Parts: sequence; structure tokens; C-alpha cells
Amino acid sequence: MMKLYSYFRSGTSHRTRIAMNLKSLAYEYIAVNLARDQQLESAFKAINPQGLVPVLQADDLLLFQSPAILEWLEEVYPETPLLPKDAAGRMQVRALSAMIGCDIHPINNRRILQYLRNELSVDEDKVIKWCNRWISEGFAALEKRLAQDNSRGKFCYGDNPTFADCYLIPQVASARRFKVDLSAYPNIAEIDTHCRTLKAFADADPMAQPDA
Amino acid sequence: MMKLYSYFRSGTSHRTRIAMNLKSLAYEYIAVNLARDQQLESAFKAINPQGLVPVLQADDLLLFQSPAILEWLEEVYPETPLLPKDAAGRMQVRALSAMIGCDIHPINNRRILQYLRNELSVDEDKVIKWCNRWISEGFAALEKRLAQDNSRGKFCYGDNPTFADCYLIPQVASARRFKVDLSAYPNIAEIDTHCRTLKAFADADPMAQPDA
Repeated sequence: MMKLYSYFRSGTSHRTRIAMNLKSLAYEYIAVNLARDQQLESAFKAINPQGLVPVLQADDLLLFQSPAILEWLEEVYPETPLLPKDAAGRMQVRALSAMIGCDIHPINNRRILQYLRNELSVDEDKVIKWCNRWISEGFAALEKRLAQDNSRGKFCYGDNPTFADCYLIPQVASARRFKVDLSAYPNIAEIDTHCRTLKAFADADPMAQPDA
Repeated sequence: MMKLYSYFRSGTSHRTRIAMNLKSLAYEYIAVNLARDQQLESAFKAINPQGLVPVLQADDLLLFQSPAILEWLEEVYPETPLLPKDAAGRMQVRALSAMIGCDIHPINNRRILQYLRNELSVDEDKVIKWCNRWISEGFAALEKRLAQDNSRGKFCYGDNPTFADCYLIPQVASARRFKVDLSAYPNIAEIDTHCRTLKAFADADPMAQPDA
């Protein structure tokens, strides 16, 4: 069985859990406590020198970086595809994913917020404002695209879940934690509401994890 | 002919130029002046509502987000592949790419540095320190992986260029601008030196662009 090194509240772990659940892939859950900096301890660094979750262990192969893990899952477990069949559709889904995976998520990462607090002495209310700014800016761009594109269905792209939903739902969960007003993003809110009714998404939810 | 909306010093534009050159794909270069915030003007926002370069126009298709553009190029123009053939190799290359594309580049983006300066009143020397921190942390992790993995060849992965080199070379260019000491990263420096001897990389260099 595959092993997933994960932290319940890590957005990148969350998106990997969703993808694995959508593909009905069983895995052993191994908690890495980021709140206690367990990811920086030598035991975990032997698994991933970058000290980041998630890591997926599949036999002898250690997979790291969620965008690469998702593409690997799609190639090795093509049943229940999470990318459309045509190149233009695949581009669209990957672009929506990158809008979250590159332009929103990394900027609000724990290590960044700790640097703002500890090295730049930024007050907590300004740290929250920081998170709000990048989530709101990113969601506004995403919302515009979801509203314009006629490819949107029950999910970000069409009526089947794709990578884009794996990226979106954890980012919405994070937005809620940072008290971002979601009413400005009706397409995003609608997709989120729909996804959360599905078992694959519900089972991947941070609060449903053993380390929550 | 395809059109590439680009800014000479944008790392994401730079990586797209490298990929297109490696695949011998001709394109018309359309400069978008980020220093004058041209990406935020309505003319460009009609092309990409997110207000970010690069955008690639291929017939009626507008492609955005460089990770998605690179994957599209690989699918539609498979000659001169930039990903290995096996799933494990592809995962490795995509993971190295994401280490740069998610964990280094977005944090040192112009819009982030402007926010530090203008909204958080961070001094210029601390802005430079900020960039140095994330580039150094990311390069240290990358260097460790390049040194450990026996897949490293003349390039990040084997003896042919891949996505990972398309991501790495622009990040090294940015590291140089922020005066990061590269001597701590001999593998990265060696790959950079080799790549820069090749025409596809040289032609994509920021200083070789019409808007430089």
C-alpha cells in the first residue's frame, strides 16, 4: 500500500488526498506535525531533504511536490482521469491549477508567515491582511475565468472533477480560516459547495484526518 | 505564427522562451512592459484578466500560466521532448520544476516585493534579504537533490534538457540580480554554465530580448 506523509491542514497534502480519493487509491496516512516543525527533523529530512509535505511513497519510489505527484498519479492510474482528453482542455485545467498552486498558495505558506512575524516583526493583523490580499487577488482572477469560460460545469472544468478542483477546495478551506469573504466569488463558492457533498472530498478534509 | 506576450526580465516568460526555442518553435515577440504596469492596462487584461505574463497565442487559443503552457507545448509539439519517457523520470523533472515554480519564484515576484515596500514599509536591504532567503533555501534543497540523484547529467535530469532546466536557468539569472552567492551550489552553477553555451538558452536570455 502507498504511504502518504501528510499534515491535516497542509493545502498541498489536502490536494493530494483529494486526488488519491477520487482515483480510489488506498494509502497509509503518516502524520508529520508541521506545528511542531517535525518536517525539519532529520527523520523526515531523510525522506524529503526539502522538509516539505506531502511525500508519497509507492514501493521504492519517493514522490514529492504535489503538482508532480498529481501528474504521476494521472499517468500511472489513468482510471478516473483528472485531466480532460484534449490538449486545450488539459491546458485550461493545468492553468487554473497553477493560478492556485503558484500564485496563491505558496505566498501564504507557514514558512512565509513565520518569516513575516519573526524576521520582519509584522503584526498579526497585517499577517492576516497579507493572506487576504493574495487569496482575494487570486480568487478574483479565478472567478473571472470561471465565469467567462463556457467550460465550467458542476466542477471547475466540466461535470467531472479535475486537478483544478483538487487545488481549489483546499485553497477555499484556507480562505475560510483567514476569514476571506467568499460572497464575492459565486462560481468558486458554488463549486466548493458541490465538491464538499462528495465522499472523495469529504474524506480528504483536514478535520477528517487522524492528526486533526 | 504563435505570439508570445512576454517581458524580458519575467522569469516565467523566460522559461517559456527557453522551452519554445528548445522545440525550435518560431514566435512573434510582443513586449508587455511590467515596469510600467502595462500588464494591468485594459488592453492586456482583455488577453489575460489575471494581468500576468506570459501569454501564448496559438491560433484562437490563448494559453496562460507557464507550467500549463509548457505541458501544452510538450503534448502538441512532442518532437524534442522536454520530459523523460518513464513516469518516474517525468515525476522527478516535474518535481524539480515545482521546487522552483512554486517554492522560489512566486515569493520573489514583483507584486510581492512591491507589497513589502509599499504596504509593509520594508527597507530595500530587507527586501533584498527576503529574496536571498527564499532563493537560498530553495537552491539548497535543489542542490542536495541534484547532488544525490544519479539522474543528473549535463542537465538537471540526464544529458538532454528538460522542463527543469527551463525553470532553473531563469531562476539563476534572478539569483544573480539579487546577488545570491552561487558558489554554495556547484551542481546548479555547472548546469547553468553548460546551458548558457547553447543557442536555445542564449536566445531566450533577458538581455537578448527586444524590450531589454
